[in-house]
Amino acid sequence: MSEIPQRGAAPATRLTVAAIKETAPGERRVALTPDTVARLQQAGLDVLVQAGAGIAAGFSDSDYVGAGASVVPLDEAMARADVILTVGTFSAERARRLRAGQTTIGMFRPLAAPQLAQQLADQNVTMISLDGLTRTISRAQAMDALSSQANVAGYKAALVAANAFGRFFPMLITAAGTSKPADVLVIGAGVAGLQAMGTAHRLGAVVTGYDVRAETRAEIESVSARYLELDAVGAAAGQGGYARALTSEEQTVQQEELNAHVARFDVVITTAQVPGRRPPLLVTAAALATMRAGSVLVDLGASTLGGNVEGSVPGETIVTENGVTVIGADNLPAQMPTAASVAFSHNVAALLLHIVHDAALLINLADEIQAGVVITHDGEVVHPVVRETVTPAPVLVGAR
Amino acid sequence: MSEIPQRGAAPATRLTVAAIKETAPGERRVALTPDTVARLQQAGLDVLVQAGAGIAAGFSDSDYVGAGASVVPLDEAMARADVILTVGTFSAERARRLRAGQTTIGMFRPLAAPQLAQQLADQNVTMISLDGLTRTISRAQAMDALSSQANVAGYKAALVAANAFGRFFPMLITAAGTSKPADVLVIGAGVAGLQAMGTAHRLGAVVTGYDVRAETRAEIESVSARYLELDAVGAAAGQGGYARALTSEEQTVQQEELNAHVARFDVVITTAQVPGRRPPLLVTAAALATMRAGSVLVDLGASTLGGNVEGSVPGETIVTENGVTVIGADNLPAQMPTAASVAFSHNVAALLLHIVHDAALLINLADEIQAGVVITHDGEVVHPVVRETVTPAPVLVGAR
Repeated sequence: MSEIPQRGAAPATRLTVAAIKETAPGERRVALTPDTVARLQQAGLDVLVQAGAGIAAGFSDSDYVGAGASVVPLDEAMARADVILTVGTFSAERARRLRAGQTTIGMFRPLAAPQLAQQLADQNVTMISLDGLTRTISRAQAMDALSSQANVAGYKAALVAANAFGRFFPMLITAAGTSKPADVLVIGAGVAGLQAMGTAHRLGAVVTGYDVRAETRAEIESVSARYLELDAVGAAAGQGGYARALTSEEQTVQQEELNAHVARFDVVITTAQVPGRRPPLLVTAAALATMRAGSVLVDLGASTLGGNVEGSVPGETIVTENGVTVIGADNLPAQMPTAASVAFSHNVAALLLHIVHDAALLINLADEIQAGVVITHDGEVVHPVVRETVTPAPVLVGAR
Repeated sequence: MSEIPQRGAAPATRLTVAAIKETAPGERRVALTPDTVARLQQAGLDVLVQAGAGIAAGFSDSDYVGAGASVVPLDEAMARADVILTVGTFSAERARRLRAGQTTIGMFRPLAAPQLAQQLADQNVTMISLDGLTRTISRAQAMDALSSQANVAGYKAALVAANAFGRFFPMLITAAGTSKPADVLVIGAGVAGLQAMGTAHRLGAVVTGYDVRAETRAEIESVSARYLELDAVGAAAGQGGYARALTSEEQTVQQEELNAHVARFDVVITTAQVPGRRPPLLVTAAALATMRAGSVLVDLGASTLGGNVEGSVPGETIVTENGVTVIGADNLPAQMPTAASVAFSHNVAALLLHIVHDAALLINLADEIQAGVVITHDGEVVHPVVRETVTPAPVLVGAR
């Protein structure tokens, strides 16, 4: 076999990647979709898919076989693969089945769950977490899974709101009268917020958008929404494409001003998240109490730590005493699994093609893209922010 | 008090109407909404509303009081009202509480449930059923509750389909790739079908419409849908604004041609109903088996007698072996109760204002509008078609 691969020929050695079935309750996504298989193979990758991994997302085993992948049992996938692909995180038990030298790519929320990072470092497994991507690197956009999943979540949030609302979103003129269009407020003009605005506008609602970052005004207006201007809150643009956390004083002022506006809306969709932190409280119980019966809130920030809407619970729909429906979103991308999986699969493929050279993973922490996403490597937690989180106590001089 | 009412003054005697709370499971609509109260009062009607009647539709008792209605317990509403307003039909037990001389207005499906008509005739109650309206009378359009509720159902059907679909309806271009727009087929171009087409189009789908009545082509195209032309089915325009029932041969040919088309659509919404009859079967199990995994059907014709889609069950979501989701619609207007109730209330008010003169109901069977909707009066089933249904056996000469 020639040492020098011919131009355009497949590399002599091949790297094996395997997409395994998600295990989290309600998770219907899959990390790899059939349309991506050929692209990976052309880059010298062999593709395994655990049997049944794509079913809940609408992809059968035969779809994968038709695309050129091998469908295998879990044990075989785990044993043969150099790289294990997943959407959500592993259980500690599943993680123990990874072997030294393996790499896994997914969204592992290492800041929220640093103990898994430490475990995989100890097992000498390389953890690559797409949610660590520095979102301001434009050539990394194709790998941005947080954005692609937020895009699905924003669209779905608008549909969920429309479906829960007892009236029409559009103005409709019929013999039985004219319905006025729904007034929709979307708080947060990130990817999810802008897609929610755009979708509500498509459906015919009159949409208003708000974001603490005043420079989002043009983006809000570009999806045909009105920009809601608050007087008291100054610019709070954050680092790395996220809003920074407001000070508690700023939050209080923002809340009070928003509260005064919220009552006139039929539908409010909140999308404010700050990575690794409790989401900001934007709509208080006092504001909810001023809303009209029949109003609907969808809280994309809902979490077990609390959400953007006071009292929201992930995965639950609550109706307040004054007849306002509060829907706590819970993994909306998993509820639109085909689109979400296709986008995620493209993100994973883009990252793989960035890291794989000549059928080998080239981990290089000097690369600004890899620096964000490589969490563990060579038996260490290498990501500086995650490392701080797993070892919060200062290391004493001289201690080993 | 003057015998001659002054121009513009309220009539000296007043007629009392009462909206009562619906009792059917899952029914959230109310027959009268607060915005209609003033209009009825100006026509000389006193308005009672049963306590809590509007809650599920988003209208509190205080909303009604604020609009000028009196909120009263059921017994008082039943005792004082000259006209009882309801959306859906009564139970036989509830019907027995109506007293001789009272009138009730609702949607009683007298062809499907003729025994209630006979009972109310025997009790000397006047039954006015909005679903009997001759829909081709243009001045009756404001009273057309079947249309107003079908409009809600069509909008909601598109939302339900979009919400069940695992991908986007619109084409979206993002860094993670481009989603192709959903291909949506709507079968039936009545009010519900056209609104479903329009709503799916608003959301960004590519919409195709089909109706056995070829003259609906212009209407289908007017809501930005493509008209699906079938070769084998001739014009089958029906009477009174409905499609007529096809012959079984025509149905077979239609089914076969549609079956050949159905496989290429992502979403199919069926809306074919024939009043008082089993809905036509449009999408067979064989056609379902040809559809791609992830496809969604919403059957507005779903009924206990069978629906437009083989195997659909009202109120249930079934996933076929090949991964196709079949949603049997079950009273969709009740799932968007505010809009549906407002429209229904306008329909009822338009009918009342047509029949009420000087604060009295003037029943006149020579009036073409009343001829369609007045089912019982003066102790008789007066509607000729319903009368045939309640007395199917020929009356023997000389029999009493």
